[in-house]
Amino acid sequence: MRCIWLQEQESSLRDVDAPRPAEGEALVRVRLAGICATDLELCRGYYPYQGILGHEFVGEIVEAAQAPERVGQRVVGEINAGCGRCSRCAAGLARHCAERSVLGIVGGDGAFAELLTLPLQNLLGVPDEVADEAAVFTEPLAAALEIQQQLPIDPAGRALVVGAGRLGQLVAATLALTGLEVCAVVRRQRQRALLEGYGVTPLGEQDVETASFGLVVEASGAAAGLALARRALWPRGTLVLKSTYAGETAIDLSGFVVDEITIVGSRCGPFAPALRLLAAERIDPRPLIDDRLPLDAGLDGLRRAAEPGALKVLLDPRASTDAGQRAR
Amino acid sequence: MRCIWLQEQESSLRDVDAPRPAEGEALVRVRLAGICATDLELCRGYYPYQGILGHEFVGEIVEAAQAPERVGQRVVGEINAGCGRCSRCAAGLARHCAERSVLGIVGGDGAFAELLTLPLQNLLGVPDEVADEAAVFTEPLAAALEIQQQLPIDPAGRALVVGAGRLGQLVAATLALTGLEVCAVVRRQRQRALLEGYGVTPLGEQDVETASFGLVVEASGAAAGLALARRALWPRGTLVLKSTYAGETAIDLSGFVVDEITIVGSRCGPFAPALRLLAAERIDPRPLIDDRLPLDAGLDGLRRAAEPGALKVLLDPRASTDAGQRAR
Repeated sequence: MRCIWLQEQESSLRDVDAPRPAEGEALVRVRLAGICATDLELCRGYYPYQGILGHEFVGEIVEAAQAPERVGQRVVGEINAGCGRCSRCAAGLARHCAERSVLGIVGGDGAFAELLTLPLQNLLGVPDEVADEAAVFTEPLAAALEIQQQLPIDPAGRALVVGAGRLGQLVAATLALTGLEVCAVVRRQRQRALLEGYGVTPLGEQDVETASFGLVVEASGAAAGLALARRALWPRGTLVLKSTYAGETAIDLSGFVVDEITIVGSRCGPFAPALRLLAAERIDPRPLIDDRLPLDAGLDGLRRAAEPGALKVLLDPRASTDAGQRAR
Repeated sequence: MRCIWLQEQESSLRDVDAPRPAEGEALVRVRLAGICATDLELCRGYYPYQGILGHEFVGEIVEAAQAPERVGQRVVGEINAGCGRCSRCAAGLARHCAERSVLGIVGGDGAFAELLTLPLQNLLGVPDEVADEAAVFTEPLAAALEIQQQLPIDPAGRALVVGAGRLGQLVAATLALTGLEVCAVVRRQRQRALLEGYGVTPLGEQDVETASFGLVVEASGAAAGLALARRALWPRGTLVLKSTYAGETAIDLSGFVVDEITIVGSRCGPFAPALRLLAAERIDPRPLIDDRLPLDAGLDGLRRAAEPGALKVLLDPRASTDAGQRAR
């Protein structure tokens, strides 16, 4: 099957053997996959991953020996697969299992392919009313909702999101659903219009007042964004970090101590509420789609997604196969 | 009056004019003062402070125009004095007032002197049963209790304190009072014995298991201590930073995101519960006293407090005056 393969920070279009589901796993045909900043960071060497890239997808189950009744079901998939035996899994922290695989990120081939495998328990059925183009956002939408799962949100407060890109838009939109007054730092006209559609107030960088927000989410993945986020925080405020990237960052920790700032690292989140929000149309992520390309054009897709200001680029393996056949 | 004066990172013994209390302030005769790591960091240039050093003290009110009935009262003092007019002060965040003075640290002469001034509302009476040698620990004990004020403590959990020095001992001792199982990293036999006296389990650095504590307090102020604290944290654990020091620290922020660690900066704390714990003898800090010197020997005291493994060094301005007179 066709896939986008990463090896030694070099991505390439490859033909590989189709995966075989292990016991308890399903074989899933990918209908659409989304490119995320983490994919781009993996290409830059954030983590020494080798294998098929991609972790945002919607697909359909084509084989499931332990649950044949689920064949044909349209699904999205929790990307972390814990060992199920360790104390972390037992404590409900499977996403933090030390032996976990993470689809397309750690020790498990990903979604930029025609087929993938995941444990059946990781696969959630997609309600009929949620189109593929919305369902493919379930994973990043769940990651946005992780903030609400980690923190008590004071809806009478004010939040700032730094970075109005792929993830920042969803973070701002979901925070606004809590009743919070949410602002987001924008650099581009298109980001501004999208935020307004989500009920979020766009702010230019120069309009962010020092020490004026109790909750700031850093979703830019840039040192300048982190500095702006820090500056915007009210004493005793909370800074949520949503970005993962390679390398170390130099920080004045004493400043965080003096101002008694809380920093919260925040990664993957809960899928079920993300699907509920999509089904109820509380969030429509489709305006974030920049482009939709066949999987065969996945390398172009990665380049496109890495352009400044780019939002979501989707890869379609079914279109890809046709295009691939046409090309041959 | 005699004092220890800091200017351009150089501390010296000086004679200066006695301070005059402003309206709403009291004049306090210092009975005992304690040397803290922050004093040593100020001498190293952590913050460009110029003036009389020192912020831990017990004293007695000798002049208070607005509260003459308090003259003679033995007191300890909240070191942060807010402006009382801004939105932070109004929000109960006077300790974070942007215009605050902080005794012996920011814009307000400190306690390594015969006399100091503070707003009357900052001065708390010391119960008779609390000796000067215990009362002088009120400020660092309050700083330790700030952790409990900031975080929900799960007493069924396990906490690790990294750095069993002046502040780390009080942090570990107060955490142990919550019912938590508390361990602390020790390098010296004396730290070990003190911790055991406070019901805390001493651990050698090599005995700290990776990812084994839900709550870790970094009180060593050293990069190696921070790395050890990070390593000891269970996923989704909380890292409390208690140290302030000069310079930036390089951190792998993505690791904190992936493990969803919460970092909490923690500074000054509530005085009233600290005094209650001292009065009820729930904590006896006096075993932490390494040395007690006349204020005239304060520069020796600063050197003594900076020695590896040193705990609390106290300065006595009353002994100091006598010794100074004897020397003249």
